Amino acid sequence: MVEGLKSITEFIHSDYIIDTLFTTAEISKQLPNLPQNIKVFEVNEQELKKISALQNPQGIIAIVKVPLHHTTLLNSQAPIHLLLDGVQDPGNLGTIIRTVNWFGYSHLFCSADTVDAYNPKVVQASMGALSQVKIIYTDLKTLITQHKLPVYAGLLNGKNIYQHHWASNAFLLLGSEGSGISDKLLPFISHPITIPGKGSTESLNVAVSAAIFCAEIQRNFNK
Amino acid sequence: MVEGLKSITEFIHSDYIIDTLFTTAEISKQLPNLPQNIKVFEVNEQELKKISALQNPQGIIAIVKVPLHHTTLLNSQAPIHLLLDGVQDPGNLGTIIRTVNWFGYSHLFCSADTVDAYNPKVVQASMGALSQVKIIYTDLKTLITQHKLPVYAGLLNGKNIYQHHWASNAFLLLGSEGSGISDKLLPFISHPITIPGKGSTESLNVAVSAAIFCAEIQRNFNK
Repeated sequence: MVEGLKSITEFIHSDYIIDTLFTTAEISKQLPNLPQNIKVFEVNEQELKKISALQNPQGIIAIVKVPLHHTTLLNSQAPIHLLLDGVQDPGNLGTIIRTVNWFGYSHLFCSADTVDAYNPKVVQASMGALSQVKIIYTDLKTLITQHKLPVYAGLLNGKNIYQHHWASNAFLLLGSEGSGISDKLLPFISHPITIPGKGSTESLNVAVSAAIFCAEIQRNFNK
Repeated sequence: MVEGLKSITEFIHSDYIIDTLFTTAEISKQLPNLPQNIKVFEVNEQELKKISALQNPQGIIAIVKVPLHHTTLLNSQAPIHLLLDGVQDPGNLGTIIRTVNWFGYSHLFCSADTVDAYNPKVVQASMGALSQVKIIYTDLKTLITQHKLPVYAGLLNGKNIYQHHWASNAFLLLGSEGSGISDKLLPFISHPITIPGKGSTESLNVAVSAAIFCAEIQRNFNK
């Protein structure tokens, strides 16, 4: 379920297949040209409110088919493959999807216990970027052991991020909000990396860490 | 109102004054030594749920007095003074407070129409960092015109952030989620700065932008 004209327009222009649209008459006029096989229902605001997951519905809701990704690392465009281990907060996952799309990542790998990327709150926070980034739920240990790549990881006692030399074609592993990177993955980390801090805060939000890593990687590969 | 033992412990160890604690018997045992004048009420989980702003209350709620900050720029420790213009989402403001605390900022300036920093959702997202960062609501135009400092700003068509030369003692202005930086502040920007993007996403989340700016500033001043 995708809400809001801006996000839905991104999905219409993507590889996703829209099944059904529920739209108010007003928003309906602003829609781009639609593929023929989309079912469109005009509804009023009261009806829309009953379907919406938002406190303030945005006048249009799309039901979109969840695609199956048969993806290997080989067709990823980004220098680094980002792996999320158990991220729980839908707002964080959505924000990470939006961020990696900004930095041109085509894929994002998530452990099986990461929050569902099709949770409406994830879709909302991703602001349409979910239509552009393939989210692959997989066993991260298998993924890491099958590919002989460096495994960078965001940890509290690693090497200073600003002094790290980034190799392209490597994994970057980030852990969950509460418990960090899971014990079974720790032995596979080749390079623990830290964003140095000064204040009393114990850690950074995972979406914030992901953003700082993406920016620093971009800076390194565009020098 | 502050919820959760970890955040409340940070507030107890800060300059803030705790007025009242509502706590379950279980969490009560884990409390640090308390100043004598705090009122403590033991409640059960049902009672706590009625007061809490969270779906899953964390066993303890503190009522904390809002301080008055009489602050000038002169006693700020950070190289840059971050100004937020109209940020609306409480999760974003809370995440920004947590992030600037991580990077050692003692102050954060907000326009009068920025979301209330004492909104429970802001307090929650800040993870205790609100106790360490002074949030000053002020007229940003007056603040900028009273101090002859460079005004850096996050904009879509500025200079590449990685090529910018940062002066210390400058303002960094970030706009709101929907409408960016307000028209009345645009003429005062001396250096528009952009985080370069590649994907289809139109913009970055404001908390993500703030984090990338803070990290890049830290990298520059620690070289």
